[in-house]
Amino acid sequence: MSEAIHTLEGWFALHDFRSIDWSAWKALSLEERKAALDEVLTLRRAWGQTQEQKQGSSGLYSIVGQKADLVFVHFRPTLQELNELETELNKTLFAEITVPAYSYVSVVELSNYVAKEGVDPETDPYIQGRLKPTLPETEHICFYPMNKKREGNDNWYMLSMEERREMMRSHGMIGRKYAGKVTQIITGSVGLDDWEWGVTLFADDPIQFKKLIYEMRFDEVSARFGEFGSFFVGNRLTDDQFVQMMEL
Amino acid sequence: MSEAIHTLEGWFALHDFRSIDWSAWKALSLEERKAALDEVLTLRRAWGQTQEQKQGSSGLYSIVGQKADLVFVHFRPTLQELNELETELNKTLFAEITVPAYSYVSVVELSNYVAKEGVDPETDPYIQGRLKPTLPETEHICFYPMNKKREGNDNWYMLSMEERREMMRSHGMIGRKYAGKVTQIITGSVGLDDWEWGVTLFADDPIQFKKLIYEMRFDEVSARFGEFGSFFVGNRLTDDQFVQMMEL
Amino acid sequence: MSEAIHTLEGWFALHDFRSIDWSAWKALSLEERKAALDEVLTLRRAWGQTQEQKQGSSGLYSIVGQKADLVFVHFRPTLQELNELETELNKTLFAEITVPAYSYVSVVELSNYVAKEGVDPETDPYIQGRLKPTLPETEHICFYPMNKKREGNDNWYMLSMEERREMMRSHGMIGRKYAGKVTQIITGSVGLDDWEWGVTLFADDPIQFKKLIYEMRFDEVSARFGEFGSFFVGNRLTDDQFVQMMEL
Amino acid sequence: MSEAIHTLEGWFALHDFRSIDWSAWKALSLEERKAALDEVLTLRRAWGQTQEQKQGSSGLYSIVGQKADLVFVHFRPTLQELNELETELNKTLFAEITVPAYSYVSVVELSNYVAKEGVDPETDPYIQGRLKPTLPETEHICFYPMNKKREGNDNWYMLSMEERREMMRSHGMIGRKYAGKVTQIITGSVGLDDWEWGVTLFADDPIQFKKLIYEMRFDEVSARFGEFGSFFVGNRLTDDQFVQMMEL
Amino acid sequence: MSEAIHTLEGWFALHDFRSIDWSAWKALSLEERKAALDEVLTLRRAWGQTQEQKQGSSGLYSIVGQKADLVFVHFRPTLQELNELETELNKTLFAEITVPAYSYVSVVELSNYVAKEGVDPETDPYIQGRLKPTLPETEHICFYPMNKKREGNDNWYMLSMEERREMMRSHGMIGRKYAGKVTQIITGSVGLDDWEWGVTLFADDPIQFKKLIYEMRFDEVSARFGEFGSFFVGNRLTDDQFVQMMEL
Repeated sequence: MSEAIHTLEGWFALHDFRSIDWSAWKALSLEERKAALDEVLTLRRAWGQTQEQKQGSSGLYSIVGQKADLVFVHFRPTLQELNELETELNKTLFAEITVPAYSYVSVVELSNYVAKEGVDPETDPYIQGRLKPTLPETEHICFYPMNKKREGNDNWYMLSMEERREMMRSHGMIGRKYAGKVTQIITGSVGLDDWEWGVTLFADDPIQFKKLIYEMRFDEVSARFGEFGSFFVGNRLTDDQFVQMMEL
Repeated sequence: MSEAIHTLEGWFALHDFRSIDWSAWKALSLEERKAALDEVLTLRRAWGQTQEQKQGSSGLYSIVGQKADLVFVHFRPTLQELNELETELNKTLFAEITVPAYSYVSVVELSNYVAKEGVDPETDPYIQGRLKPTLPETEHICFYPMNKKREGNDNWYMLSMEERREMMRSHGMIGRKYAGKVTQIITGSVGLDDWEWGVTLFADDPIQFKKLIYEMRFDEVSARFGEFGSFFVGNRLTDDQFVQMMEL
Repeated sequence: MSEAIHTLEGWFALHDFRSIDWSAWKALSLEERKAALDEVLTLRRAWGQTQEQKQGSSGLYSIVGQKADLVFVHFRPTLQELNELETELNKTLFAEITVPAYSYVSVVELSNYVAKEGVDPETDPYIQGRLKPTLPETEHICFYPMNKKREGNDNWYMLSMEERREMMRSHGMIGRKYAGKVTQIITGSVGLDDWEWGVTLFADDPIQFKKLIYEMRFDEVSARFGEFGSFFVGNRLTDDQFVQMMEL
Repeated sequence: MSEAIHTLEGWFALHDFRSIDWSAWKALSLEERKAALDEVLTLRRAWGQTQEQKQGSSGLYSIVGQKADLVFVHFRPTLQELNELETELNKTLFAEITVPAYSYVSVVELSNYVAKEGVDPETDPYIQGRLKPTLPETEHICFYPMNKKREGNDNWYMLSMEERREMMRSHGMIGRKYAGKVTQIITGSVGLDDWEWGVTLFADDPIQFKKLIYEMRFDEVSARFGEFGSFFVGNRLTDDQFVQMMEL
Repeated sequence: MSEAIHTLEGWFALHDFRSIDWSAWKALSLEERKAALDEVLTLRRAWGQTQEQKQGSSGLYSIVGQKADLVFVHFRPTLQELNELETELNKTLFAEITVPAYSYVSVVELSNYVAKEGVDPETDPYIQGRLKPTLPETEHICFYPMNKKREGNDNWYMLSMEERREMMRSHGMIGRKYAGKVTQIITGSVGLDDWEWGVTLFADDPIQFKKLIYEMRFDEVSARFGEFGSFFVGNRLTDDQFVQMMEL
């Protein structure tokens, strides 16, 4: 048996993708549409207060293409809170004009393939900040879930700790080249959702998503061991942009 | 031909996942909504009596994310009883505002890879208790179905009994490290549903689901031979919590 | 080129799985519901007469779990008859409250891996009886479609006739251990539906489905060469049980 | 690089599978139903004239099982004509009571693995007749799409022309054994639809579909290199049979 | 680690496939239908102006078969513009009678496997023209997404730069044989959508799509490393052809 890596877990995450039923939206009266948008804006204000109190972080993005129209991204300390956020949104008038498109349940994860000596992760401010992240205010988001492959000779989980550590080190070095261009939040989802990890990337220039992921694909850890789910790319929505997007 | 392991079977199990049609729910009058909830609460009371009479066990959980909103979990002595429970729920008003999301049919299974000598499983109280389980009252549930792989050199069913026994022993030792943190019920579904086993886990801290399954993934029996279906994670719902979740 | 085994074909088979739209059912008046059930009972009487005249066999079963609520199983001499049965049911009021869930088209098949010398299958009563089967009156049914694998070194169709014959012989010996407990009807579907075979099992104790299929899975022909589709398990419905199941 | 085989292309083909919405059909008045059928019969007469003028060929078949209820098969000189036929049908009242079930776009293809010397395919009447086929008037149809596999050592496209030619020759000899029992039209769909070829078979005895395809499966070109999609089997519908099928 | 190839990115692309709900279309009044078409024609005029101003390019095509009825293809400098185009169309009356069928998000990509010395791609007019393409006015379009395989010994991303460069060179030589018959636009979608590339082909003779892709399939880069998604083929729609297609 190969040795499992120690992981640190932080806030739970829910990516809640929705498609808009535009016919239903247009069938509402102007007053109903205004009420529906106000409900969402009120929720967003509450989520903003939670974020100011360092009790979570939430964001809203439009998604390009037909896979979804919107994604609500939430980070919270407990699964119960995520479930309540989801149910609260489901009860709004706005939810009635949306259709579930995809969702992902995970938890922020740091793996100490590269643990620093002499640092106590439970108190270290840098590590605690990464475990309880605030969504960056970049223009674009990219999300995809992934597995490490277990096929024939390409079985990540049968490698030794040393092999995995060395590959992850090289992998991390690519990521570091994109510092300042791409911010990433890695969430683990073993036992929580259908893939092993979720990757959420943030950038002002969406070409950087492509360049980063494409460069990593030649890295042995992705080339031999990466299995990828659907990719979603979108644009950040301020309240004004959201209202404008919905305006008929 | 490799020798099949002897298995013991207990109660049959039905995991009945449902999504809520919130628009339909909101279209009901307050009276209808109250009547719909009362019907479910009445069913739950009846299920509770069955449990007190040691004739089965039933639980209700909310599911996080869009895969489902609720799961009804039932253990009963016969398939007919499960079918009747399912049909009984389908006839309620509450069912009209839900949509089937997923289901799993299986039977509690103990495999005697580690049979104790001198114990008659048909009468042993510990074994009988595990074959006819009562759902634990933990805060969280995790469910996933799985297969043992049959691909090229990674073919579980072509291994000798000794190889399988040794791997399962090591696997069980990981599980034992989580005693007190995670309770598991293994159900077999060969001939009953699309995967070979269902795994239902219970814990107060959902991070323990992730830690247990992730650690096991490095174990050869999972690394080389585990194939996994969808993972569902949820929160236990008391009557009050269920009513509160549905309250508009 | 490996030599194909000679097969004998008998009656065609249609497994017609349906889910019930309970909301639509409940929206019917008591009279409409009675009329809808009467239509089905009338059809069943006609199918019973066909069976008495040795011109086919039909059965109705409830299915446990959400994959389907009912399965109508029909054996008939021609594809046209199956198509007419299907269309006849589709025109009933009852069909309006059901939704297609799955179907399977196949033909009863005997492969003479173990042909007896001196027996003419065209006239032998035992063989003719198996080619034109009457559905047994057991409490439970199990259905699943399957293929023989063609992957790398595990390619059934590249084996010699001798290898295949030997493996099928060993396979048949497991089946014979379940004589009296499980009855099976093998139907071939190459050129008729998406898998190569359909397996329909009948038993009074559904645990025997699990034990039989699980034991066979360790047999090389299943371990290396079996590919399986969805498994459906259900309970036989007499007219009274069907009416009771639908009663609100 | 392995050498590609030269292919000849003839008429384009559209297989247009539809399911009937029987509830919608029954909701029409007798007059509307008559009008809907008349529209289809009028289209069929026009298609018959096209066929008489050697400008195409069209057929209508019922499909057994739930995958579809009907398939309209069209051969025409251009993709535009197929698109117009499809759109013309979509605009009928009859189309309103059908639901798209599956479709396949391809073009009649002859591969000259066995080209005859001294024959100019552009003028040879036999070859031209096969490139512009008339649908045979057999009782049954069978359709399935397929690929040649490209997996590890089983990669058709990495074989030499000689290897492919030899395997196709052996393959063709099986087909010839069914001459007079099964007629086949091979259509290519690389660049036109999701599989590389479509196979449409015609026979009066549907057991011959099974026997032909099953025998071929032991041939190396199918055993090692064949990948198959869904199989559809059906019965030819004359105008009278079509009207009778729809009669309530 | 294998070295990643340098890529140049140009305009973003959205392929927006839609199916027509013909029943809904027919339920509109003549005035509503005229208004719905006028809205689309007005949008097309605006897109034409964008194209004249070299700020993008847009086209409309009908799709043969049931996968979709129409595809709107857009090239624009930013993801935001594509999102706005999509949302603008979603708000039209015409969108109410369509159903999303498939979409693809990507960005025009040139890979310099064959970079010319002494050419600055940022200013070279030929390269800039390919990065910001105008849709050609051919009769037919073909679209499919694809990956480079990463399976066992067939792992594109584990090859050396030299091996990849040599294979791509041979691949490009096939493409060049079709110069004047087929025009292609390659778009990259790593990090943007579910496949690694989108291929959009244009030709007056759709048989050339088949011949080109079939010939390439014997090329090692496709034979061993190509993984393909769905193929869509269609006919260009001028305003008049679009109006005629929709005319009842």
